[in-house]
Amino acid sequence: MLKFFFGPKSCALASHLALEEADADYQALKLDLVAGDQKKPEYLKINPKARVPALVTDRGILTENPAILAYIAQTHPAKKLAPLDDPYAFGKIQAFTAYLCATVHVAHAHGRRGYRWADQQSSFDDMKQKVPETMAACFGLIENEMFEGPWVAGANFSIADPYLFTIASWLESDGVDPKRFPKVLDHRNRMAQRPAVQRVLPLHS
Amino acid sequence: MLKFFFGPKSCALASHLALEEADADYQALKLDLVAGDQKKPEYLKINPKARVPALVTDRGILTENPAILAYIAQTHPAKKLAPLDDPYAFGKIQAFTAYLCATVHVAHAHGRRGYRWADQQSSFDDMKQKVPETMAACFGLIENEMFEGPWVAGANFSIADPYLFTIASWLESDGVDPKRFPKVLDHRNRMAQRPAVQRVLPLHS
Repeated sequence: MLKFFFGPKSCALASHLALEEADADYQALKLDLVAGDQKKPEYLKINPKARVPALVTDRGILTENPAILAYIAQTHPAKKLAPLDDPYAFGKIQAFTAYLCATVHVAHAHGRRGYRWADQQSSFDDMKQKVPETMAACFGLIENEMFEGPWVAGANFSIADPYLFTIASWLESDGVDPKRFPKVLDHRNRMAQRPAVQRVLPLHS
Repeated sequence: MLKFFFGPKSCALASHLALEEADADYQALKLDLVAGDQKKPEYLKINPKARVPALVTDRGILTENPAILAYIAQTHPAKKLAPLDDPYAFGKIQAFTAYLCATVHVAHAHGRRGYRWADQQSSFDDMKQKVPETMAACFGLIENEMFEGPWVAGANFSIADPYLFTIASWLESDGVDPKRFPKVLDHRNRMAQRPAVQRVLPLHS
């Protein structure tokens, strides 16, 4: 059985939702990120990066949402969570998950974890102030250039959808009105109605 | 034929090297990033994110190194640039490329492109000062926890290797002595001797 480590209100929700959509055989283990569970020695053996998510498989441990999402899709092919036999279509989904991971999540993190990249309170304040601008720019690109509709990659639901849902859920707390991005907002509303989301979301509060 | 857009001294080197290792049928097109080619209307049609790399295929355009690298491996299976039939082993490589993309490259970028995340010169100076610390922390994790040896993923060369080579080449300019990371430095030296690297690197100067 897979073991999945997550923290509430974290990006791990993306992989957690994908596990649930895949009907995977897994156990979810919640860390208290505020208490610093992710920095304790026993968790650092799981993920020395001291981050979530981490997925413990019978072969070893996987980290990073884009990697875990693709792994879930590849190990549950009947669920058709990615176009596994089409490298270009798979590549489009991977480009999307890489963008969420490396640009959008990073933009968001500057509002609350500026200490990762600077030392002065004045820098943290400056970074925090810019988050509404950077997040709105990211979601402008998603809305206008990347989102195919009705799902991220077009007609078929994929691993990209729970990841977009996860990060789009942060918009209000980042000072961005999601109504500026009607396709993303409609996607978020449709995602919220899925049984997998309704089962998992209460665990992340 | 594939068309590959890159800028000199950028992370696009990773995908460029993978194309060369795959003996792919491609044309490389160099942008002048200092002159702002990546923000010109004709390139924004290729990649509205105004970044490199971008790979134009006969199906459409792929961006983001992790996505392009996996695509190159999947479309050139005989070159064995990734364990395509082993989701766990593929996932380990993807976790590595995601880490380089979303954490290591991002740490580096704070030394020269702080304007992405802040507005004040004092913040840029603060960020720049922290880069040696953050990059050394990243490479400490790579050296001690992630690098399998002799290649990133163990016995077999993979798409993760040109990506590590690319970012490890930035260590000196980020104020980090690569001798602190002997496995990474040895890898960099072995990579530099590969014919693919020797053919491509002069185009990136």
